[in-house]
Amino acid sequence: MKCIFCEIASSNAPSFNIYEDNEIISFLDLNPRSPGHTLVIPKAHYENFSEMTPAIFSAFFSRLQIIAMRVEKALGADGYNLICNNGRAAGQTVFHCHFHIIPRFYDDNLRFKMPILNYDNQKFKSTAELIKNTEL
Amino acid sequence: MKCIFCEIASSNAPSFNIYEDNEIISFLDLNPRSPGHTLVIPKAHYENFSEMTPAIFSAFFSRLQIIAMRVEKALGADGYNLICNNGRAAGQTVFHCHFHIIPRFYDDNLRFKMPILNYDNQKFKSTAELIKNTEL
Repeated sequence: MKCIFCEIASSNAPSFNIYEDNEIISFLDLNPRSPGHTLVIPKAHYENFSEMTPAIFSAFFSRLQIIAMRVEKALGADGYNLICNNGRAAGQTVFHCHFHIIPRFYDDNLRFKMPILNYDNQKFKSTAELIKNTEL
Repeated sequence: MKCIFCEIASSNAPSFNIYEDNEIISFLDLNPRSPGHTLVIPKAHYENFSEMTPAIFSAFFSRLQIIAMRVEKALGADGYNLICNNGRAAGQTVFHCHFHIIPRFYDDNLRFKMPILNYDNQKFKSTAELIKNTEL
């Protein structure tokens, strides 16, 4: 099955583009969660953020920053979320790494349904140790 | 009022650290939304992503990538969200730019409450044009 974002990156599928260069393309999310909801992707296929080559980070995030500021200004937004979902469990549905720019407004009533866990100091300490001691 | 993340970056406030170098520090979020919920911040004070200097993007996101992979592996997670909230309207509560790494599990029941807007082609087209024509 063809990757829909690879198809968009190669102009073989329609999209409402915001920006394009040799390495990066940005277009509107067709399932907008907010007015001006925009995606920014590397044209090369990386399944998720973990797979992206750090060689493109400088160019990619510089461009993401400029596009986010333009989206925010264009929509007259009061802020924005950057979100990158990695893995089906995290809500990723297209397996070509993409960053969402979601313009936000004081009255938009969007929420993350994510209750706060009750950790004590010992639990924080053991969790930090666990992560620090994990080798890739 | 002092910035709590500047205080953490300078070791003047307690934190459960995951990683630290001259430019970047990573520590557990004290209001964890998921086991292993971790923050990565530049030590220098930038209010939000828009303010960050692109000069640090290569180092910052390379380190964010490695930390995210370690967090995911350490917690045995099925995926992770990267989230950067910019502005109070976007849910930002500490005004020192930070990226959340939120480990996700198939059964965690966390959700973004963000209904899909009903846009037609004309609305997509006019929105893309609006953003493309906006100068910073």
